[in-house]
Amino acid sequence: MEILEALHDGLLLLDGAMGTMLQSRGLRLGERPELFSITHPQVVEGIHREYIEAGAQVVYANTFGANAHKLAGTGHTPAEVIEASVRAAKAACAGTNATKVALDVGPIGELLAPAGSLGFDEAYALFKEQIDAGVRCGADLIVIETMTDLYEVKAALLAAKENSELPVFVTMTFERGGRTFTGCSVSAMALTLEGLGADAIGINCSLGPKEIYPIAKELSVWTRLPLIVKANAGLPDPQTGKYDVTPEAFVGSALQFMEIGVSAIGGCCGTTPEYIARMRETLSGKRPAKREYPARAAICTPTKTVAIDGVAVIGERINPTGKKLFKQALIEHNMDYILSQAIAQIEADADILDVNVGLPEIDETVMLPEVVCRLQAVIDAPLQLDSSNAKALENALRLYNGKPVVNSVNGEAAVLERILPLVKKYGAAVVGLTLDENGIPPKAGERFAIAQRILDAALRYGIRREDVYIDCLTLTASVQQKEVMETLKAVQMVKERLGLKTVLGVSNISFGLPGRELINQSFLTLALAHGLDLPIINPNIPSMMGAVAAFRVLYNQDEGAKDFITKYAQEKGAAPVVSVQGMTI
Amino acid sequence: MEILEALHDGLLLLDGAMGTMLQSRGLRLGERPELFSITHPQVVEGIHREYIEAGAQVVYANTFGANAHKLAGTGHTPAEVIEASVRAAKAACAGTNATKVALDVGPIGELLAPAGSLGFDEAYALFKEQIDAGVRCGADLIVIETMTDLYEVKAALLAAKENSELPVFVTMTFERGGRTFTGCSVSAMALTLEGLGADAIGINCSLGPKEIYPIAKELSVWTRLPLIVKANAGLPDPQTGKYDVTPEAFVGSALQFMEIGVSAIGGCCGTTPEYIARMRETLSGKRPAKREYPARAAICTPTKTVAIDGVAVIGERINPTGKKLFKQALIEHNMDYILSQAIAQIEADADILDVNVGLPEIDETVMLPEVVCRLQAVIDAPLQLDSSNAKALENALRLYNGKPVVNSVNGEAAVLERILPLVKKYGAAVVGLTLDENGIPPKAGERFAIAQRILDAALRYGIRREDVYIDCLTLTASVQQKEVMETLKAVQMVKERLGLKTVLGVSNISFGLPGRELINQSFLTLALAHGLDLPIINPNIPSMMGAVAAFRVLYNQDEGAKDFITKYAQEKGAAPVVSVQGMTI
Ligand SMILES: [Zn+2]
Ligand SMILES: [Zn+2]
Ligand SMILES: [Zn+2]
Repeated sequence: MEILEALHDGLLLLDGAMGTMLQSRGLRLGERPELFSITHPQVVEGIHREYIEAGAQVVYANTFGANAHKLAGTGHTPAEVIEASVRAAKAACAGTNATKVALDVGPIGELLAPAGSLGFDEAYALFKEQIDAGVRCGADLIVIETMTDLYEVKAALLAAKENSELPVFVTMTFERGGRTFTGCSVSAMALTLEGLGADAIGINCSLGPKEIYPIAKELSVWTRLPLIVKANAGLPDPQTGKYDVTPEAFVGSALQFMEIGVSAIGGCCGTTPEYIARMRETLSGKRPAKREYPARAAICTPTKTVAIDGVAVIGERINPTGKKLFKQALIEHNMDYILSQAIAQIEADADILDVNVGLPEIDETVMLPEVVCRLQAVIDAPLQLDSSNAKALENALRLYNGKPVVNSVNGEAAVLERILPLVKKYGAAVVGLTLDENGIPPKAGERFAIAQRILDAALRYGIRREDVYIDCLTLTASVQQKEVMETLKAVQMVKERLGLKTVLGVSNISFGLPGRELINQSFLTLALAHGLDLPIINPNIPSMMGAVAAFRVLYNQDEGAKDFITKYAQEKGAAPVVSVQGMTI
Repeated sequence: MEILEALHDGLLLLDGAMGTMLQSRGLRLGERPELFSITHPQVVEGIHREYIEAGAQVVYANTFGANAHKLAGTGHTPAEVIEASVRAAKAACAGTNATKVALDVGPIGELLAPAGSLGFDEAYALFKEQIDAGVRCGADLIVIETMTDLYEVKAALLAAKENSELPVFVTMTFERGGRTFTGCSVSAMALTLEGLGADAIGINCSLGPKEIYPIAKELSVWTRLPLIVKANAGLPDPQTGKYDVTPEAFVGSALQFMEIGVSAIGGCCGTTPEYIARMRETLSGKRPAKREYPARAAICTPTKTVAIDGVAVIGERINPTGKKLFKQALIEHNMDYILSQAIAQIEADADILDVNVGLPEIDETVMLPEVVCRLQAVIDAPLQLDSSNAKALENALRLYNGKPVVNSVNGEAAVLERILPLVKKYGAAVVGLTLDENGIPPKAGERFAIAQRILDAALRYGIRREDVYIDCLTLTASVQQKEVMETLKAVQMVKERLGLKTVLGVSNISFGLPGRELINQSFLTLALAHGLDLPIINPNIPSMMGAVAAFRVLYNQDEGAKDFITKYAQEKGAAPVVSVQGMTI
């Protein structure tokens, strides 16, 4: 993919606006710009040619809204429009093979469920139709752009990856606050799209370069991917409609973007071939700054990113194991009960929710994705998809909005082969349990060896090191008292020697003992001290969340004890009550 | 001291009974045996001579009951009786200088306070009178024997050490259960007497060799000192008065004692020169087994030994700092209140009680020993004498019954010079705080360096390594959040690199924060995980004792969770309640 090499070697100059150029060449308000490729192909080709002459190395074909939804009632299919648009772009490139033609894919123009009525699979089908057409008529790459809904991007990106071999660029459109119109954050965009296999990501439209700059800067610390910026030429004058950033100023901004490592730059609304030409004059020969990307463990939904750079709590309550009422709710398809369990955990400050719906009576392949979608409609915490059923996992991974974590794989080769490709394809993090076909080894060193094996397998599948979390397995103190310390030692070894994040289900430790909550609380604190990052606990037990809050103060994670004071200052004489029987299992 | 060299080089053969021998030579029932030295010096000398000819290397002069209390009304002073008795023994040794004469010091014959009315200082004065006399007439060593009251032994041993340069042997008399008549345990005897400077310790009288064997075996693991056994010749036949262990059987037992490292063997009631002669025949040339003594950190009272081989809790409540009611009680000399605080802590399972009575209004040099004595009259837990006043410490150390711990010294040379000699003389353990004239260093490494300095100083003063405990100092998380981890690191360094036991006052951590109890509980667990042995806490807060109990389960100190289950099994739905305000500071 020579275009990707170009991106890595230096600055890739993109083209400028198509829409505003068409308006200046006769496109009337309300007219679909893509139809111009059929009605006025020479105009479209002419605009492309101007950009190519100005120095653009990539031109975006006039296919932005060429989807069946937007074209409904025009009498034209996406395939027709795309064919005409790509032909115009290719015609403009005639005589040069340095310029590449991008299939431009914009938003469908209808909200996806749950906010709107368009299903994820329907969105996927609309995008697939465009991708197929673009591939057929020889587009060199795919650009998904001006997106505000991460879920819609996921449908488009999956459609692109599953139906073509072309490089895929994705740019989204942010508002001044650093979020998209639908609330998607920069970090969620980066984590999700890098995971799903985008080749370059960035920001376009809506704002001028000055407003985009801090957003691009934030993006640069959340991804290793090459960065793209296509800013508008500032804002249009309400009276004249003229944009307020001159080509000179635009070039100055481009230099600033290059200093933070942006490597593909063009223009969006209000920019013209002059902007591109001025950039070529000034920027050619200059190289974007090398970026240093500190690997970060994180998962997300569009609106909430959980960076695992301290303790993050995984709520354990969405799980039928040992929970009579939950079992019943699953069997009776009582979604309200399941959602109430989720909400209660979020209100108790869980950072992530585990989702396990495995029951013999239940078809997990249907139930897991359904519960995931229902949960994502009401809560913003990232989810841990907890299943050993590969099909259930794939169905849920496909519909999950953001970057989830999959729980779990283990040291068994067959399990690794079955699950890791899904983790890689859908860009999730994954929990590896330190057991294999021979069971759970008693000694820390042996569990560490399995962790190493899991990590090696994950790396072979192209999963990043920081996305592998290890669960060293909590045994039951009443039965395997000596192994309690082996678990703690294993956690420390995995943390110190492999540098991986660690997960541990806590409450199993006290099974069969009285005073369970006290044992759980102490074990939690001990595990945190040994390097546990992601305790799986019941966040509705105050002593457990209390242990996390206190640990964060004592290990300097809660600076100035701000969170702790907020939580406990008002609870005079009331906080945290420990009751041996109070535990929900 | 050649006798000590003899003890270390091989078996030291002691003599046999004097009392039963005198009875067989005319002593009538009710007559004081010591007076025989005045009335029948040739008989006494003759018995000694028989023992010397049988091979005894040490003969005990006929001074067992030669104290002013027992001699009252006889018309003879201890000095007269001792002079006559030692003279008789020396006369028997004439012509050989291989045999040594011991001043034999038995019990006073009256109970010491609080059980009886004899004051510790009075007892000391009675013993001093005997020691002075023995020294004057040239005794070669002092043997304190047939003791059942550890406190009385302490008075005698202090009198011997402070008023002579002679070697001092101490043997106590045990019952079959492994305790003396007053309840003193083997470990308490060993810890206390080794600390006070006895040169050899052991067991005599009351039981035959078979019954003494397990007790001697237990003693051998609690002391490094040479061991002495002088068993009776079994038990007397109620009809004939004849003892039931023959000289042959007695020699067989002596071999068993040598196998566990006993290096001074003689006989007590019922033994005769024949027993000694048979031992010489069979045992001469044989060497007692070398003992391996694993250094053990422990403190005690006569009836309770706390071995620091896991977590041991020090109760913090006997301390006026920040406690209004306690201050008032001290000022009003309200002992009942102070004792009630002690009892409450013992009922809550504290292992050791800290005793601090420092107040500007109070003369600590009087109050500390008084409180110590009053406490020891009602509770059996060992005490931590908590004062920086050397005179107060010495007064309390002198009157303490058992082996206490002194809190505290620090890295300041002047403090070490003032306190460590007292610690050494009275055989206490000592807590060293990792601060010096420059204050508390922020970094773990610097605190560790002070710990090292304190240890080196203690070793120079002859204090044993296992008797040095280090307090790495808890700072306040609200003010010095980063130093919390430095304290934990320092604890771990001291534990791992110096192998010393560690002490830490816990509740200071949460000063100035809400949710104090939660912070205290978590910090306690974290500190235990880093190697804290001796948390100083309020044992009447269930969450604190709960944290200790849970830790002991999780770190395999409470095997099979026996203690934990006992404590929590019955507390259905009730245990341990944490309340933020409930903490007594
Ligand atoms: Zn635009
Ligand atoms: Zn008297
Ligand atoms: Zn005897």
